[in-house]
Amino acid sequence: MRLVIQTLDSRDAGFDAALERLLARDDTRDAEVERAVAGIVSDVAARGDRALIEHTNRLDRRAVETAAQLEIDRAALAAALEAVADRERAALERAARRIRSFHERQKESSWSYAEDDGSRYGQIVTPVERVGVYVPGGKAVYPSSVLMNAIPARVAGVSEIVMVAPAPRGRLAPVVLAAAALAGVDRAFTIGGAQAVAALAWGTETVPAVDKIVGPGNRYVAAAKRRVFGRVGIDAIAGPSEVVVICDAGADPEWVALDLFAQAEHDEAARAVLIAVDGATAARVAAAMRRLLPRMERRDVIARALADHGALIVAADFEEAARISNRIAPEHLELQVADAEPLLSKVRHAGAVFAGYYSAEALGDYCAGPNHVLPTSGAARFSSPLGVYDFQKRTSLIACSAAGARALADVAATLADAEGLTAHARAARRRGG
Amino acid sequence: MRLVIQTLDSRDAGFDAALERLLARDDTRDAEVERAVAGIVSDVAARGDRALIEHTNRLDRRAVETAAQLEIDRAALAAALEAVADRERAALERAARRIRSFHERQKESSWSYAEDDGSRYGQIVTPVERVGVYVPGGKAVYPSSVLMNAIPARVAGVSEIVMVAPAPRGRLAPVVLAAAALAGVDRAFTIGGAQAVAALAWGTETVPAVDKIVGPGNRYVAAAKRRVFGRVGIDAIAGPSEVVVICDAGADPEWVALDLFAQAEHDEAARAVLIAVDGATAARVAAAMRRLLPRMERRDVIARALADHGALIVAADFEEAARISNRIAPEHLELQVADAEPLLSKVRHAGAVFAGYYSAEALGDYCAGPNHVLPTSGAARFSSPLGVYDFQKRTSLIACSAAGARALADVAATLADAEGLTAHARAARRRGG
Repeated sequence: MRLVIQTLDSRDAGFDAALERLLARDDTRDAEVERAVAGIVSDVAARGDRALIEHTNRLDRRAVETAAQLEIDRAALAAALEAVADRERAALERAARRIRSFHERQKESSWSYAEDDGSRYGQIVTPVERVGVYVPGGKAVYPSSVLMNAIPARVAGVSEIVMVAPAPRGRLAPVVLAAAALAGVDRAFTIGGAQAVAALAWGTETVPAVDKIVGPGNRYVAAAKRRVFGRVGIDAIAGPSEVVVICDAGADPEWVALDLFAQAEHDEAARAVLIAVDGATAARVAAAMRRLLPRMERRDVIARALADHGALIVAADFEEAARISNRIAPEHLELQVADAEPLLSKVRHAGAVFAGYYSAEALGDYCAGPNHVLPTSGAARFSSPLGVYDFQKRTSLIACSAAGARALADVAATLADAEGLTAHARAARRRGG
Repeated sequence: MRLVIQTLDSRDAGFDAALERLLARDDTRDAEVERAVAGIVSDVAARGDRALIEHTNRLDRRAVETAAQLEIDRAALAAALEAVADRERAALERAARRIRSFHERQKESSWSYAEDDGSRYGQIVTPVERVGVYVPGGKAVYPSSVLMNAIPARVAGVSEIVMVAPAPRGRLAPVVLAAAALAGVDRAFTIGGAQAVAALAWGTETVPAVDKIVGPGNRYVAAAKRRVFGRVGIDAIAGPSEVVVICDAGADPEWVALDLFAQAEHDEAARAVLIAVDGATAARVAAAMRRLLPRMERRDVIARALADHGALIVAADFEEAARISNRIAPEHLELQVADAEPLLSKVRHAGAVFAGYYSAEALGDYCAGPNHVLPTSGAARFSSPLGVYDFQKRTSLIACSAAGARALADVAATLADAEGLTAHARAARRRGG
């Protein structure tokens, strides 16, 4: 297993173009996927359970006869938690506790204030009522994803959390069900793909319609979420996972190498980028990568991802390293440096920053507390980690006193007239007395 | 001009079905619009200014030769503000001040906390860097929309606000430019439609690429925003405007009638719904509507909207009125009642609540302070008014001490192993020492 990874020097003439190529994302939509998804979504919307059963049997190779068979009751979830090995259960519980404790701090509260004239204005914060959590199935087994999606919803005060997870040939990892029990999932269904998204968005006789759908999935799930967006809320559409590691000469090359590998092992589309400020440091990390790669269980995936989407970048200084990172706006940014503070103050766009030698991304992925659902593909320029705020919503409060209305009426009426909305103007003027 | 509006009684057997019909939304996408938009977007992405000029000349009937002609410089914006009539200028300034002052309260700040082992966790809040504000042109003249979209961005600390507004045949209302000057828009272009959205998302030689695009628009604009979502952030896709008015016997029937008209005058798709708890009150409002309708300048639009999408609902009591309103999850909810508090506590889903007789929606639309960009079509179940938070984003901070990493390493490694992500497990264990 040979390591292939491109090295870029920020002083080279072709650097900007090379960086652009590295970041190039495939923005095209697969028309075939979109067509298939449109058909499935409208079928489930129209025929409910019947369509859900048919698509599930066909796509997940199952032989379900009634929709009730698609539900996993709470006793089964609790039993799965009991059956999990002690060591794993303790880890799940520890992680859940820490995730809950971090997210409690994100909870937003209503506020309002009174003006001198007795009017009151403010913002009422309420939880989303019912949330659907999509959990990928098949090859992937991600109990951490259940915790990261369901716990913030629970903290926000969501009334009902409905989990869906496909069970190809009827199989679903018990540890996923255990995590669901621990996270406080209310109902769980073994359904997946576009049909599960459609069922959550429209509701069927058996699956309740939800107000918002979160959670990662393949391109069918992503296309279905895009399609139902508006009818229900959705979280971001996740792209390939990414890390940028900025390291100084004091960083342990093997720690850095393992962190890059951890990113690259997700799948072949994963992106792992190192930025060092001297060639010697970059070379030491490359050497560690060459040395450790053969020992990695997932070395094939890692090698492919690094060859296709990895890079070792040598920047002039930390100022420039931060600039390059901000341009990438990575999902994960590690600052493997002795003193992270000065660099941290230069970070403008990142989903999560891991500051200091001991802050391995893997610790944050599972149990540090902050969410591991983060903006990808540069979306950190405009969006945030999944959080409690994604499960809360705001209602503006406008309570005008008679004096307050008098003070505003003419301003409102003048602007309404300027916009040609004369009924608005009349409604405002009437309150002005 | 005769008033035609359906009356529904919540005790009737067919009420639920009738309410469903009233709320029925057209979820279909117009394939023709989508195809046209896909073509324009990819053309502008590929050919930049050249394509932008061609589509603008064709769709807005203009004869622009260079992209520079599409920009309105800051001196022109300032001149437009100077040229506005004193009365309008004062109203704009008053509204801008109140909007700014309300939104200042929404600003979020970074936070972090230290654990006993010296680890630090938190959330870093930063502004979105560059924002595009779409302002509809043509028949509509909406300076208030400029204020409501640009001011929260400015309050959030956005570095550059780029406004786009189509200028059919080269015409654009000066009051819109005046509002842009007042709101602190940095650059303005007379472009619109899918071509403007594409230019903002990809950038051209002349139009800077932005990180997020907000603002209302027609179905071409909506389809284009959907299409570029992911590459840039977007706000919600707005549906028809809606109001639910819950009124008691003490409400002035003419005030209520005017508020319903103000909603209905937006366009024929607008929805205005009254909920009273007794037939006599509903009848008094209906009588006021019949009396006032002929005096409304926009009576044709109002009559059409009320006939197609309006309703007078008689509910059993305020409890039920609130339940019906929550099911609608309206963009605007007026509580035209003597004591709004008890009813307010029952509201679960609404974009904005206008509490008490004096709180006309029109006051909130222009100058009370809260934003008038609100979730429509039931989206208040899962989303919020446009706010400063839409122009801020969060980055998680994870700074583990050596002791902190030791405490987390085994938990993370155990879960990583359970997920088959062994490089994650190794990276975590190394930090555990």
